[in-house]
Amino acid sequence: MPKVSEDHLAARRRQILDGARRCFAEFGYDGATVRRLEEATGLSRGAIFHHYRDKEALFLALAHEDAEHMADVAAGGGLVQVMRDMLDRPTDFDWLATRLEIARKLRSDSTFRSAWQARSAELEDATLARLERQRSAGRLRDDLPTPVILSYLELILDGLITRLATGQDTSGLHAVLDLVEESVRQHSESES
Amino acid sequence: MPKVSEDHLAARRRQILDGARRCFAEFGYDGATVRRLEEATGLSRGAIFHHYRDKEALFLALAHEDAEHMADVAAGGGLVQVMRDMLDRPTDFDWLATRLEIARKLRSDSTFRSAWQARSAELEDATLARLERQRSAGRLRDDLPTPVILSYLELILDGLITRLATGQDTSGLHAVLDLVEESVRQHSESES
Repeated sequence: MPKVSEDHLAARRRQILDGARRCFAEFGYDGATVRRLEEATGLSRGAIFHHYRDKEALFLALAHEDAEHMADVAAGGGLVQVMRDMLDRPTDFDWLATRLEIARKLRSDSTFRSAWQARSAELEDATLARLERQRSAGRLRDDLPTPVILSYLELILDGLITRLATGQDTSGLHAVLDLVEESVRQHSESES
Repeated sequence: MPKVSEDHLAARRRQILDGARRCFAEFGYDGATVRRLEEATGLSRGAIFHHYRDKEALFLALAHEDAEHMADVAAGGGLVQVMRDMLDRPTDFDWLATRLEIARKLRSDSTFRSAWQARSAELEDATLARLERQRSAGRLRDDLPTPVILSYLELILDGLITRLATGQDTSGLHAVLDLVEESVRQHSESES
């Protein structure tokens, strides 16, 4: 395929994803109808669903973008750094709310749940790889299996997303994240 | 008011709350229409809204029931015990999903948010009171302010609700809760 077509394809997909993200954020998953997706992207349903099979595929593509971005941060600074970034940077709270609204669908629709988990695997892999490096470097407490620590950090990330999506006060949460980091760190003997 | 009428009133409210909880759980907050609330409770809209002003008031009454129950457990065993109970006992996952679905409404509707927070105050008060007792007894780490510890525990509860509502695997979470408890406990000198 000539270069210009590839560029065009990428630009068109970008246009669809950006519009769809705004649409889901404003109307929620159920409220993002085909008509509203057309309005938000400025494209016809034919053009949209030429690139993405259906609304579900579009939503999963956006979830995948989130996971890729978070995985980049987690690979370098860990999952707590992902959370600190969410606290510090203007986050799209409406989009986060949409991530909560699909809870029922995640539980009742196993195909959707598998696809969602596949899209999030990058983040889990990046976090796990960093935890193992921290462990090798003697910076991770060695009395707990890595999966327990991973599960602990993921639970806190889920809590943080809920906190941000519901607009609760987050001013004290950096101190909470300090506690989280400290609770999984290896303490040197001189500290104990 | 004679005793028999009070009993009748309580029974009628119970009938409305139980039906409404099933209805919200099955259809979500937005999907719980007046017609569906009538079907689920077996009562007319006139009868339902004689006892509860509107759908919002009904939902908040159910949230208040949750908070009261959790506050009872938290007063005795702490917020981690509340979470262990959620892991051990058959919880109504569909109802938990509804608690996530209202994220957008909580953030955009300040009246609703205030009412929701007022309904949850009991749980926060009970948790805080127990943390202060634990602190007095020397069982809570003394290098962190109680509000930080409270906020930490609440964040984990939010994460747990998300985990349960989305149907994710929870088999490893008791070990995670052990870590949570240990991270806020005062360690005796002989342990350090």
